[in-house]
Amino acid sequence: MRPPLLSINNQAIGVFDSGLGGLTVLKALEKQLPHESFIYFGDTAHVPYGSKSVETVQNYSNQITQFLLSHDVKLIVIACNTASSVAAEVLRKKFDVPIFGVVTPAVEQAISFHKNGEIGIIGTQATIASNSYVDKFTSLAPHINTVQQACPLFVPLIEEDWGDTDTAKGVADIYLKSLAKHPVDALVLGCTHYPMMEKIIQSVVGNSVKLISSGPAAAKTVDNFLVKNNLQNDGKNSPTEAFFVTDFPQKFDKLGSQFLGRALTNVHHIKL
Amino acid sequence: MRPPLLSINNQAIGVFDSGLGGLTVLKALEKQLPHESFIYFGDTAHVPYGSKSVETVQNYSNQITQFLLSHDVKLIVIACNTASSVAAEVLRKKFDVPIFGVVTPAVEQAISFHKNGEIGIIGTQATIASNSYVDKFTSLAPHINTVQQACPLFVPLIEEDWGDTDTAKGVADIYLKSLAKHPVDALVLGCTHYPMMEKIIQSVVGNSVKLISSGPAAAKTVDNFLVKNNLQNDGKNSPTEAFFVTDFPQKFDKLGSQFLGRALTNVHHIKL
Repeated sequence: MRPPLLSINNQAIGVFDSGLGGLTVLKALEKQLPHESFIYFGDTAHVPYGSKSVETVQNYSNQITQFLLSHDVKLIVIACNTASSVAAEVLRKKFDVPIFGVVTPAVEQAISFHKNGEIGIIGTQATIASNSYVDKFTSLAPHINTVQQACPLFVPLIEEDWGDTDTAKGVADIYLKSLAKHPVDALVLGCTHYPMMEKIIQSVVGNSVKLISSGPAAAKTVDNFLVKNNLQNDGKNSPTEAFFVTDFPQKFDKLGSQFLGRALTNVHHIKL
Repeated sequence: MRPPLLSINNQAIGVFDSGLGGLTVLKALEKQLPHESFIYFGDTAHVPYGSKSVETVQNYSNQITQFLLSHDVKLIVIACNTASSVAAEVLRKKFDVPIFGVVTPAVEQAISFHKNGEIGIIGTQATIASNSYVDKFTSLAPHINTVQQACPLFVPLIEEDWGDTDTAKGVADIYLKSLAKHPVDALVLGCTHYPMMEKIIQSVVGNSVKLISSGPAAAKTVDNFLVKNNLQNDGKNSPTEAFFVTDFPQKFDKLGSQFLGRALTNVHHIKL
């Protein structure tokens, strides 16, 4: 065991996702926490997690957490709704480091926008089937009714850069038809890709519905935790950033900059 | 090294794919070769291959081939266009067993339907980017002009069971628009999923275009090889069948029976 080279405050925040979608969460974290350093891990050799089994997603998440800990991160953000839904609890039991998923922050934010209606949740097949959002609402706000819908075609549409097309509009109309029958106050975008289709989703559900994205909600939660525990970076050195991926997939550069809003640099290819 | 328990003729044929799409090829093999035994390997923990890097697909294919050889298969069919396109040659150099991909059989069949026009090819991002079909046409029939188009949304549409919907029709119209400008005699469905969208693809390209599916073309090639080399199963025992998958993904049973045309039995979960 080598000793950490930095004081705990100045260690990086580890962020991981099944692929590149979690970059939308990283983008929100950077905006909220400009003095922090980040290590992003994208498991692009195994992407997507959304259709895989719980056991397999837990196994991958476990290996990634070990990797991030070997890089002395001070906390970990699971920037993936599927892994947050099915692996966060398992990881928290196994590892000592603080671990934040994207489910609880989004649920807390949605509750704050609740009026008299219901809360909607959309996500991948695995996230919706896990009932993780519904369970979290039940435990934090049992008086709120929820309605959820899996939207498996949204991710491939976004990765094809068709997120703002008539095709995407047509698919959104079909998926969100059943939600429209409910008096929804807020809709949780339970997948890190979905903010890239925000415009169309908003147009289908109507402007009275508040859309909740994983990234900003998680970033606020992490910010509060750092302040409360006196764990903020002291800001004396420039923050650093590194990216680790298990594969350089087709369209890596294009998708990466699409999600992060700028080109990825300091990218390393590693095997789990 | 344990000795094989069966004579080489009565050993199984190994078939592998990134996931369940290759079951459409297995279905064609079973129809063409009713006396043969089969071992099907679906790498469902890593699916899809179509968007991953060449190196990663070669690595997975290598491990699967070793697994199939440890089960004494007499030949291997790569029932995956991406792996056939980027890994078949590497595997043939490394292993002694006869290895058949789905590219060459489909190209040979397409050539037989060539009149005076061109040949179209559709497939995943990786298959099209590899130019494997175009290169094979160039080497076997340099006088034929080809035109190709990646259709990344077809697989997720089929896996959502939307292969026969207005949405699929709209997506096919967009992808196949450029092909329609060419005088195409035959269109190679360069992805094992695509036969599940055959009706819509045919309606978009018109009835004068002959659609070539990977499965039946590969099955005929394998049949010819077995006959020519005297390697057919002697038919004294009932043929057996076993399935190995690296994950039981969401919707496994539904997709499996959709592609194979019946429920999967004798399914084993293994780690690579």
